[in-house]
Amino acid sequence: MTKGRLLSLRQQLRDLGLQGFVVPHADEHQNEYTPANAERLAWLTGFTGSAGEAVLTLSEGAIYVDGRYTLQVRQQTDRNQFTPLNLYEDKMEDWLVDRVGKGDRIGYDPWLHTREWIGKVSEKLSEKGALFVPLDDNPIDQVWQDRPADSDAPAVAHPIEYSGEDSLHKRERIGADIKSKGADAAVLTLLDSIAWLFNIRGRDVAHTPLVSSYAILFADGSATLYIDPGKVNKELKAFLGDSVKLTSKSVFPAGLVKLKKKRVLVDPKRSHAAVFELLDKAGAVIVEGQDPCLLPKAMKNDVEIKGTRAAHNRDAVAVCKFLAWLDTAGPKGSIDEAAAAEKLLSFREEQDLFRDTSFDTISGAGPNGAIVHYRVTPDSSRTLEPDMLYLVDSGGQYLDGTTDITRTVCIGTPTEEQKDRFTRVLKGHIALAQARFPHGRSGAHLDSLARKPLWDVGLDYDHGTGHGVGSYLGVHEGPQSISRLGFGVPLEQGMILSNEPGYYKEGEYGIRIENLILVRERRFDEEERPMLSFETLTHVPIDKRLINAYMMTTAEITWFNIYHAQVREIVGPHLTGKEREWLMRATESLMVL
Amino acid sequence: MTKGRLLSLRQQLRDLGLQGFVVPHADEHQNEYTPANAERLAWLTGFTGSAGEAVLTLSEGAIYVDGRYTLQVRQQTDRNQFTPLNLYEDKMEDWLVDRVGKGDRIGYDPWLHTREWIGKVSEKLSEKGALFVPLDDNPIDQVWQDRPADSDAPAVAHPIEYSGEDSLHKRERIGADIKSKGADAAVLTLLDSIAWLFNIRGRDVAHTPLVSSYAILFADGSATLYIDPGKVNKELKAFLGDSVKLTSKSVFPAGLVKLKKKRVLVDPKRSHAAVFELLDKAGAVIVEGQDPCLLPKAMKNDVEIKGTRAAHNRDAVAVCKFLAWLDTAGPKGSIDEAAAAEKLLSFREEQDLFRDTSFDTISGAGPNGAIVHYRVTPDSSRTLEPDMLYLVDSGGQYLDGTTDITRTVCIGTPTEEQKDRFTRVLKGHIALAQARFPHGRSGAHLDSLARKPLWDVGLDYDHGTGHGVGSYLGVHEGPQSISRLGFGVPLEQGMILSNEPGYYKEGEYGIRIENLILVRERRFDEEERPMLSFETLTHVPIDKRLINAYMMTTAEITWFNIYHAQVREIVGPHLTGKEREWLMRATESLMVL
Repeated sequence: MTKGRLLSLRQQLRDLGLQGFVVPHADEHQNEYTPANAERLAWLTGFTGSAGEAVLTLSEGAIYVDGRYTLQVRQQTDRNQFTPLNLYEDKMEDWLVDRVGKGDRIGYDPWLHTREWIGKVSEKLSEKGALFVPLDDNPIDQVWQDRPADSDAPAVAHPIEYSGEDSLHKRERIGADIKSKGADAAVLTLLDSIAWLFNIRGRDVAHTPLVSSYAILFADGSATLYIDPGKVNKELKAFLGDSVKLTSKSVFPAGLVKLKKKRVLVDPKRSHAAVFELLDKAGAVIVEGQDPCLLPKAMKNDVEIKGTRAAHNRDAVAVCKFLAWLDTAGPKGSIDEAAAAEKLLSFREEQDLFRDTSFDTISGAGPNGAIVHYRVTPDSSRTLEPDMLYLVDSGGQYLDGTTDITRTVCIGTPTEEQKDRFTRVLKGHIALAQARFPHGRSGAHLDSLARKPLWDVGLDYDHGTGHGVGSYLGVHEGPQSISRLGFGVPLEQGMILSNEPGYYKEGEYGIRIENLILVRERRFDEEERPMLSFETLTHVPIDKRLINAYMMTTAEITWFNIYHAQVREIVGPHLTGKEREWLMRATESLMVL
Repeated sequence: MTKGRLLSLRQQLRDLGLQGFVVPHADEHQNEYTPANAERLAWLTGFTGSAGEAVLTLSEGAIYVDGRYTLQVRQQTDRNQFTPLNLYEDKMEDWLVDRVGKGDRIGYDPWLHTREWIGKVSEKLSEKGALFVPLDDNPIDQVWQDRPADSDAPAVAHPIEYSGEDSLHKRERIGADIKSKGADAAVLTLLDSIAWLFNIRGRDVAHTPLVSSYAILFADGSATLYIDPGKVNKELKAFLGDSVKLTSKSVFPAGLVKLKKKRVLVDPKRSHAAVFELLDKAGAVIVEGQDPCLLPKAMKNDVEIKGTRAAHNRDAVAVCKFLAWLDTAGPKGSIDEAAAAEKLLSFREEQDLFRDTSFDTISGAGPNGAIVHYRVTPDSSRTLEPDMLYLVDSGGQYLDGTTDITRTVCIGTPTEEQKDRFTRVLKGHIALAQARFPHGRSGAHLDSLARKPLWDVGLDYDHGTGHGVGSYLGVHEGPQSISRLGFGVPLEQGMILSNEPGYYKEGEYGIRIENLILVRERRFDEEERPMLSFETLTHVPIDKRLINAYMMTTAEITWFNIYHAQVREIVGPHLTGKEREWLMRATESLMVL
C-alpha cells in the first residue's frame, strides 16, 4: 500500500521540481500526540511509532527511529523503500549529502521544523551546492487521499474553580512580562500554552484536552485567538470576553504578517520556522525568548494544587480497586495485559470528573515490563502468570488534575534478585521524595539521588527520573524535569513532577515506582536558609512483597510506613468489603524483626 | 599615592584622545596568580584582592569587587576616586553608558579581555554613540614608574619520571586532535597548558610552577614556543628537541600574523581578544574550540597518578606532624594563625621534592575560619585559644604532585552545635568519597550528594564542592569541577578533584573537610555497567572529637574507620615518639557504644 503512496509523492515532487523531501513525525504545534491528519510519516512509511523521521530522494529513502523502535520499524516499513537507520547515531543530512548534486532542491515543510534544524541541514546541503527549500503546501497532503479532516470537537471553558486564575489576569501579567522583555506581542504556538492562557480545553489531540489553535498575545493583555469558528459557541465567546479577538485558524499566517514593525517575542525552540519566515517577511523585529506561558503554567496556583490533590485521591481509589482485583485475578492465569488495562480504565471511569486516560496505558507482564515504552497490542498481549512481575504505568485526565502512576506488583513469589532491585528502586524513590534543596537547583542536581542505590552496585536505568505534569493538560509538560539533562530550569514552588526511578532486565522483567510530587517551600524553625521539598501527591500502596527491608535504613522504613498510613487514611473511607481488606493488608507497616 | 598615579594616567588618556579606560585584574594568560608587573589594578587603586576591575573616565572612577572584598576595598581604595560597586550585581558597562556621549572613545587593552566581553561592552557603548577601542599599549604601563620587570627565572625540564609522557608524544596526539577539528594549528595562551605540553616548569607565577610564554602547536606535532631566550639553557633546548622552534615571547604577535590562510584553533573563553584580532588581520581562518590541552592534561597518566599518590603521602606526614604539634601547642594560647601557618610550612619543607606552597595558606581561628577566602595578615592574625575551632587549608607543590588539604580541629571542647555541623559536613564528604556513577556524569550531578546532610536541616555553604587539581601545576585547574555550575564536563578516569564541603557560621566558626580524590574506573563482578568512583589521595586524620557518631550510618562509620586505618598504615612508619603516639590516638576507630 505504501508503495503506491510513495509513487504518487515522488510524482508530486517531480512536478514541484524537487529532488527530495523530508517527512518528520511532527505537527505544527509540537504536540506529543500527533493528530491523525498530521500522521504523514505513518501514511508514507507504515511506521506508527511516536518518534522518527523519513527522508527520500526520487529513487531512495531512509527512515530514522530510536532504540525503542528498531524492531517495530522493520515490521512495519518496507526496507526496500526505506532503509532503517538510527535517529541519534545516523544523520539524515549526511544521507542526503551523499545523494544530492549541485543545483538539487530538497523540500521541507516550514510548519514542521525549527529554524535551527533547517539551518543545520541547509548548511550541510550547501556543501554540495544543493538547496533546502521551504514549501508552501506539504506535498503529502496533496496526494493523501482520504486524509482525515481537522477535528471539529468544540472548545469549552475551563472554569475558575479549576483554573484558579481568570484569563484576563493571566494575560495581563504575561503581557507585562512580554513588555519587560522589550516586545509588543508574543506568538504562541504550543497548544497547552494557549489552553492555559485562555482557560479553554478541547478534544483535538489524544489524551490531552487541547484545542487546535494559534494565538498572539499583546503586551496590554489583549489577544487574538486563531481558532475554527465552529469550535466556539456563544457561551465560550462570552467567557473569553471582549479583549480576545476570535478569528479563523487558517488566517494565522495573515495575522503574523500584520505584525509589521512590531517587536515580537517568539520561542525558537517551540515555534516552527514558518512563523519566523512570515514575521521576517512582515518586517517585524523578532525578540527570541522562551514561550512566556511556560513557567507560569508550570507553577501551579493554590486552586490547581487543591484540584490536583483531589484528582490524585480519586485516582488512588481507582488504582487501589484495580490492584485489589489484580491480587485475586492475577494468579489465576486468566487475564492478559490488555484485559488488565481495560479493567483499570473501568475503575477510573467510575470516578468523578474523569475525562480520559492521560496516555496509553503501559501494561507489561514479565519481559514486556522491561520495554520502557511498551504499548500492548493484540499480538503482544501476554497472560499474567504466577511468578511474574507486572508493571502498570497509567494516568487519568480529570477536570481538576492530571495523574500518572506506575506500580510494579508480583504475581506469586518474587526472586531474591527481583527483591534486591525493587528495594534499590524504592530507596531511590524515597531519597527523591524526601529531598530538600535550596532555590536555584534544577532537576539535574537531584537526579543522582534517585539513582544512587542502583549506581552503588553497577546498575542504572535509561530514562529520566521525572517529567513535568500539567493541570488537566499534558501529562508530559516542560520546562522542568528531573534528569541528567534537566539543567537551566530551577525547580520552583508549585511545579508538579514525576518521581519514577526504575530497573529493567531485558527479556525478564521491569520495575518502576512512580508517584507525582509537588514542589513546595516549607520552612522549619532554626533553618538558616529556605529550602524547597516535595509533597507526594499519589497515594497507592507500594508492593511490600517485593521489598527486602534489611536493605533499608530506619529513615527509609519510617517514610514507607508513614506513606502507607497516609494511603490508608485517604483511600480507606472509599473502599468496602474485600477491597478494604486488601487495602488494610497492603498498607501494613514494614518492620525489620 | 594613588592620586598622583590617577592624574598621570588621565593625562595619558587625554594624550591618546580617550575619554575613559578599563582596568581589569588580569594578565595575558588568565593566570590565577597575577604576576607583579600585571598588578595594574593594585597599582592604580591600591586594592590588592584577587578579583576585581576598575573603570574610569577623565573625572570619575568606580571599582567592582565581589562579596569577599567589600570591606577590604573600602580600606584600601580612596572612595572619592573610585566608587566601590558589586562585581556581580552592578555592571561596569552601565556605569560607562551613563557617563559617555556621542563620539567618546573608551579604551581597553585587548590582551586582557575576551572577545565576548568586549562585544558586550561595545554594544552597550554604541547605544550612546561611543566607541570601545583597543589600544596597542596599555596606558598604565606607560606611566607606571618602577614597574617590575618580567620574571627572569629559568625554565626547567619536567622529566619523564614525573610527566610520564614525553612532549613529542603529547604534541603528536594533540596535533592529531587539532587536525580532526579541521585546523592546521592551535594557539596556546594558558601557561599550564604550555607547561604540560612541553614538560617544562618555571617560577614566573606565585605558587604555580609556570613559565611565561606562548605557543603555537601545529597539526604535525611541531611547535613554536615563544619564550624569553634567557630562560632556556642548552640542556633545556636539547630536552625540547628539534621539532620545537624557540623564539622570543615578544614576537608572538608577529608569529600569529604569519598564520595567514591557515585554519587556527583558538579557545574564545581562554585566549584574549588580541589573539583573534591579529589572526583576523592575518587572514587566518579561526576555528573556535576548547584549548586542546585542557582535557588531556586533566586526565592524569599512570606515572602522574603514582607521583601524586607519593606526594600526598609525604604531604600527609608533614600535616600529621603539624597537627600533632598543634594538639599540644594550641591549647596553651601562645600561637597565632600566622605562626601556625609558618610551622606547617616548616614541616612541608622537610619533605622530599617539596618546592612551594600551592596557594597562600588559609589559617583561620574562631570567626576567621568562617571567612571562606581568609588570608592571614599581621593585623588579622588571631591567637588560637581553648574552645575554638581552627581551620587550616593549605597545600604543597611537589615535583611529583600538587596537594591541597583542609582540616578543622577543635582546640579544647566543641559545642554540640559544632559537632552537629561537623558531622553533617563529614557525612557529605563521605557520600562524595564513596560515590559511584556512570560515564557521562559531570560534577554538577554529584554536588548535591555532598550537600544533602546540610540541606536536610536548612543549611548550606556558598562555594563549590570541588575543583580540579594539576600535576605539579595549578592547584585550581579546569575544566572539571564539582559544583552547581559544573555541567558539560563529564568526569573521566585520571581526573583529580577536591572534595571539600563546609559550613560557616559568620562571626563564630568555620568548618571544612577537604581531601583530594582521583577518578577511577573500577569494575566489580556482576555489574551490568561500568562505573566510575573516587580514590581518596589525602591521608590525614579527621578530628574525631568533633564527630557525633550517633548521626552516622554504619556504612559511614565503616568508611571512616577504614580511612583512618589507611592513614595509620601510610603515615605511621614515618613518625616516632610523641608524634607517633598522637597518630595512634587520632586514628583510633570510631565506635557507637
